[in-house]
Amino acid sequence: MILHGYWRSGAAYRVRIALNLKRLDYIQSAHDLRSGAQRDAAFLALNPQGLVPALEIGDGTTITQSPAILEWLEERYPDPRLLPDGAEARATVRAMAALIGCDIHPLNNLRVLNALRADFGADSAAVLRWTAQWIAQGFAALETLIARHGEGFAFGTTPTLVDCYLVPQVYSAERFSVDLTPYPHLVAACERARALPAFEAAHPSRQPDAD
Amino acid sequence: MILHGYWRSGAAYRVRIALNLKRLDYIQSAHDLRSGAQRDAAFLALNPQGLVPALEIGDGTTITQSPAILEWLEERYPDPRLLPDGAEARATVRAMAALIGCDIHPLNNLRVLNALRADFGADSAAVLRWTAQWIAQGFAALETLIARHGEGFAFGTTPTLVDCYLVPQVYSAERFSVDLTPYPHLVAACERARALPAFEAAHPSRQPDAD
Repeated sequence: MILHGYWRSGAAYRVRIALNLKRLDYIQSAHDLRSGAQRDAAFLALNPQGLVPALEIGDGTTITQSPAILEWLEERYPDPRLLPDGAEARATVRAMAALIGCDIHPLNNLRVLNALRADFGADSAAVLRWTAQWIAQGFAALETLIARHGEGFAFGTTPTLVDCYLVPQVYSAERFSVDLTPYPHLVAACERARALPAFEAAHPSRQPDAD
Repeated sequence: MILHGYWRSGAAYRVRIALNLKRLDYIQSAHDLRSGAQRDAAFLALNPQGLVPALEIGDGTTITQSPAILEWLEERYPDPRLLPDGAEARATVRAMAALIGCDIHPLNNLRVLNALRADFGADSAAVLRWTAQWIAQGFAALETLIARHGEGFAFGTTPTLVDCYLVPQVYSAERFSVDLTPYPHLVAACERARALPAFEAAHPSRQPDAD
């Protein structure tokens, strides 16, 4: 498998974690989002959106969008499982993941912050306030959910899809200097997960294209 | 089941479509997002995020986040199926849904547009330009994918999760006066889907709390 990504993309980071947890081999193909490399013709042929991540799985098939890639990995490589038993438990895990994937991350990625600068003349301080407000709103709710459902990890006693989303989002929050002290359960779950080798190896600084 | 929603919420609209396609009975509980009714204490106890939709399914269990609700409905009520056979086909459907759910909708919902006005003094024209750019970027890629995978509907020959996301997003695009002529496959798929009774009954204007 070939993972098209970028070292600091939070969505690619999620997929690296899942691939590592499932002990799958993959080659990385890096696209520097800062120079717009993800919009070259060869990559657009694989992914018409021109975004990372995208996972080539052989036979000319490419899967895009990290939520879809993670569900596909779970279906094809169910060991270890990242979704729990029980439809309602799975719904809770997917909801906690979507809280990050739909309500925090999309507002704070590079193309959106670039648009805030271009469209509204946002300076660095304004961009930081923008990112911080969405992280704080989302993390406040997620703190409640982790306190309710976490038992060492963000949901239950083993890593789940939630951790694949949480660890990259905390990495981003730290880059944006967000105060995490109001979220002790969230921070504890994140610390627990990111100490695991699968998470460590997925860290942006450990990727071949890192600055 | 009790669906907590708001007539013009695109994410609640997705869930109404799926409930109708699966011929499930539900009661609606409306929260007027314009007045902040979704942040009252009773609703926060059900959903710490204070967002719609949320689906009460009995026994004190509430499922939040439309992607999680839709997957839960698919698991519990698989007839008719909204995900196709084959892991790769399911990944394509989920990716097309996530393109809307992660890369278009989150940038254009009411709380974000309110923040653009509050944080950057965006006027109505600037807000329209902001929404239009994300819809146009996403729809351009989705047009390619629907041309590739659609056969009457956005993916294949029957309604899928993609249609649950597409029809509400087109409704939103029309409200924001986005020119849809560059996306003929997308528009044709949307027209086909929204002519079905399940989609018609889910339309915002048909909901009890509509203006």
